[in-house]
Amino acid sequence: MAEGENKGLVLLDFWVSPFGQRCRIALAEKGVEYEYREENLRDKSPLLLKSNPVHKKIPVLIDHGMPVCESLNIVQYIDEKWPDRAPLLPANPYARAQARFWADLVEKKVHPPSAFHLFVSCAAPGEAHFLRKFTYCIRFQMYESGTKLWKLKGEAQEEAKKEFIEIFKLLEGELGDKKYFGGETFGLVDIALVPFTAWFYSYEACANLSTEKEAPKLVSWAKRCRERESVSKSLPDPLKVYEFVCFLKKVYGIE
Amino acid sequence: MAEGENKGLVLLDFWVSPFGQRCRIALAEKGVEYEYREENLRDKSPLLLKSNPVHKKIPVLIDHGMPVCESLNIVQYIDEKWPDRAPLLPANPYARAQARFWADLVEKKVHPPSAFHLFVSCAAPGEAHFLRKFTYCIRFQMYESGTKLWKLKGEAQEEAKKEFIEIFKLLEGELGDKKYFGGETFGLVDIALVPFTAWFYSYEACANLSTEKEAPKLVSWAKRCRERESVSKSLPDPLKVYEFVCFLKKVYGIE
Repeated sequence: MAEGENKGLVLLDFWVSPFGQRCRIALAEKGVEYEYREENLRDKSPLLLKSNPVHKKIPVLIDHGMPVCESLNIVQYIDEKWPDRAPLLPANPYARAQARFWADLVEKKVHPPSAFHLFVSCAAPGEAHFLRKFTYCIRFQMYESGTKLWKLKGEAQEEAKKEFIEIFKLLEGELGDKKYFGGETFGLVDIALVPFTAWFYSYEACANLSTEKEAPKLVSWAKRCRERESVSKSLPDPLKVYEFVCFLKKVYGIE
Repeated sequence: MAEGENKGLVLLDFWVSPFGQRCRIALAEKGVEYEYREENLRDKSPLLLKSNPVHKKIPVLIDHGMPVCESLNIVQYIDEKWPDRAPLLPANPYARAQARFWADLVEKKVHPPSAFHLFVSCAAPGEAHFLRKFTYCIRFQMYESGTKLWKLKGEAQEEAKKEFIEIFKLLEGELGDKKYFGGETFGLVDIALVPFTAWFYSYEACANLSTEKEAPKLVSWAKRCRERESVSKSLPDPLKVYEFVCFLKKVYGIE
């Protein structure tokens, strides 16, 4: 039996990954003990490659040797495996469908290609390379073939800002004056979205984008989420995220 | 109350859409009665625009005035709303996670941008326009910003073929010698994938791609699926699909 396979519950992850953070939050909400294993994404472990042969990406949750891949899938698995505490999806089929719809929208729309454009403001030849490497490092979904890299022209950052603000408004419209996306109960949509809020500071610093001004309700919601221990202990310090962004920009020679 | 809102169960759909077909199959498996409404995708009904304000796309299932959007979400809703017959997802949490993983893979990988490239073999200036319109017509997910349109060079068709064959092999690896993707029971992954098999004939005719040769197990599986009334009555005749493809190619002046 290979290393790690006989452990009860193992999460293969990478600290700054919003996708991995979703799984950590869900496990913390359920109060489930697990072993966290930090992956080196430039030299992935044989266990990761074996556990996720299709995508070869973190996060992977390995439950007694049985791997579950893809973050929203993992969160739903956690909810169904430990159904007796802290439900992450509502019981009503229609409310469940709404939660899945919005979580899927976050997955599709709050996508880091736009975020990348917020970090780079000109179209130097190295940028496409940087973006690819960046993607590689933090496992953001670039829609397989590098969507939008071809758009990496001078106006890319402004476009990305506009796109971000649009999705912020859409999400704020759904949130309204509710405490969480599902109402009074913290759940799937909150878990899908909240890890990205740790990147807000970096967006502001790199792209002169005021999330407080553009999305005040989302910012308040993010603060409420961070009052939960499951979230606060799973998300990185926004300054650490910014340091990471700066580190990568430096490594790849991007201003 | 607007037209249609007071009806019990209404499916807004378009005949050739594989996404809509997923919903039809699921409803047929459950034996649920519903009203089918064909949408004109060039002049969408107010009900569609109101029911799916975010994506403005079919299919939408409206259950007593409450809309559910996104085909895989709709299929899961159907399964959870009518849980007492023909389960579409297994009961076991791990098996459910596996089903969702593969359905999601079909959603991401068996994507029509590749199929489009199978239909066009050269890079005429009108093609990008054609592809956009084509997309518009049948609501295929072009990953929002038209992924791969920029790749529409001479080698695009060969690349698309290679990509299709790769995903066929991957899916065949998962299917193995099972009757259906989930084993003995027809379910979510079968429903996610089988509508695309109605396009196999068009791929063959347009791109000289032998699905029988490249994916014999998938072809056999598709035949088994078509023996189910739920599938046979929901999928269009492959020749009709081909006619539709030819019609669109003609409309947009593509050889």
